[in-house]
Amino acid sequence: MGHPKSITLYTAKICPYAQRVEIALAEAKVEYKAYQVDLSNKPEWFAPKVNPASKVPAIAYGGPDVDPESPSSESTKLAESLVLVEFIADLYPEANLLPKDPTLRAKARFFVEVVNSKFLPMRFILHNEPYQSILDTATVIQSLLPESGKYAMGDEYTIADIAFTPFYARFKLSVENEIGAYEYGKGREILNALQAPKYAKFNAYVDRLLERPSFKATFDEVKLTTKTIYRGC
Amino acid sequence: MGHPKSITLYTAKICPYAQRVEIALAEAKVEYKAYQVDLSNKPEWFAPKVNPASKVPAIAYGGPDVDPESPSSESTKLAESLVLVEFIADLYPEANLLPKDPTLRAKARFFVEVVNSKFLPMRFILHNEPYQSILDTATVIQSLLPESGKYAMGDEYTIADIAFTPFYARFKLSVENEIGAYEYGKGREILNALQAPKYAKFNAYVDRLLERPSFKATFDEVKLTTKTIYRGC
Ligand SMILES: N[C@@H](CCC(=O)N[C@@H](CS)C(=O)NCC(=O)O)C(=O)O
Ligand SMILES: N[C@@H](CCC(=O)N[C@@H](CS)C(=O)NCC(=O)O)C(=O)O
Repeated sequence: MGHPKSITLYTAKICPYAQRVEIALAEAKVEYKAYQVDLSNKPEWFAPKVNPASKVPAIAYGGPDVDPESPSSESTKLAESLVLVEFIADLYPEANLLPKDPTLRAKARFFVEVVNSKFLPMRFILHNEPYQSILDTATVIQSLLPESGKYAMGDEYTIADIAFTPFYARFKLSVENEIGAYEYGKGREILNALQAPKYAKFNAYVDRLLERPSFKATFDEVKLTTKTIYRGC
Repeated sequence: MGHPKSITLYTAKICPYAQRVEIALAEAKVEYKAYQVDLSNKPEWFAPKVNPASKVPAIAYGGPDVDPESPSSESTKLAESLVLVEFIADLYPEANLLPKDPTLRAKARFFVEVVNSKFLPMRFILHNEPYQSILDTATVIQSLLPESGKYAMGDEYTIADIAFTPFYARFKLSVENEIGAYEYGKGREILNALQAPKYAKFNAYVDRLLERPSFKATFDEVKLTTKTIYRGC
């Protein structure tokens, strides 16, 4: 495989997808260059030279040591948050971001698929859809948690947790601060609903997610509360 | 890791997601039990005992040797086609369903993400939406193909091709036979549009996909043309 090469991450503090990759890099203790992309005014070189989809996160891997604003054609450009998280897991196996056992790997990936396709709080936050589906998804996520262990796959913090953490954090920040397209008061309402004893295991789990140092080091609460949560996502 | 255990696959000939897993198992030359789930009349034990989401494909892995209609609580139940394809790739590394190099693995997974989220012909076939997006996606897929090599990642047939093959095959069968919710004649129209020289590389690629023995061995054209393509998906 050879030694991992240099990484430049194109990211944005506001973006939960990008934070997945920032967390994975922090967990693996990787030194990398971070370039903040202004999503409301993207540099014109970004799509042609880094990511044709014009989205963060994206990685330039390897190649000569250049200014992130002048990406080299010799580096490999990679995109899509979940692909990038698996990439970091592959490059740094010692970080244990994926279990070694194939069955447990499948369970971790299944958890990722569930949170990625079912935990969609922006439908409530941005489009004022009913919040019941968020509660239903909390029940599904809870049913996938192991009998013991701190995280989705037990005591190791893995891609399963990484995929979920940034989205849960933004959801919580939104409802606690009543920031969103929904009626004032509905944030408190869903928070209260989630306090029911039947969500106890879910709540203990998400509290631990927000305590994780890799999360704290990569979350910019102030920026998120002063701008609109999820804008551009 | 230990030797892989027994596999029972809950599947349905009609389902493109299930065919992904059948292809992966055929590529890895795995012996397994296949149980055909009647999607229009699912057995009542299926959701509680195999897959709470009540969908194929699903796998029962390991446990005692039981009749698929009486799944054992001792086997591990796994679901989601892309998770299962990676699971087969992990269990049978010698099948080379994933490249060994982390960068190439990321590219394979990116290709999977593109075909899975952008090649959505059922929107045309079932809902009569405009077919332009299918042509656009063919252009994107073509742009991801390597300069040389038969498949998405070069000469090896990988998860990238596996994710796409069943969906392309059903698309082709639909438009060649004018089976779908769209107006009669539109099938021929999109086929003609795809004949343009600018899609030559895409066409050469998809022709090779349909020649692959693992595809042919798992595709039931007759059943698909006599039933409705994509029903239940
Ligand atoms: N599926 C992508 C989604 C990434 C995404 O939507 N990023 C947003 C910010 S949260 C973005 O870059 N938007 C810019 C744009 O679409 O113009 C992933 O998982 O990485
Ligand atoms: N995301 C799932 C989709 C599987 C799926 O939609 N399967 C369909 C058949 S093509 C099914 O089992 N439908 C039965 C139902 O929903 O009742 C995967 O990738 O495995």
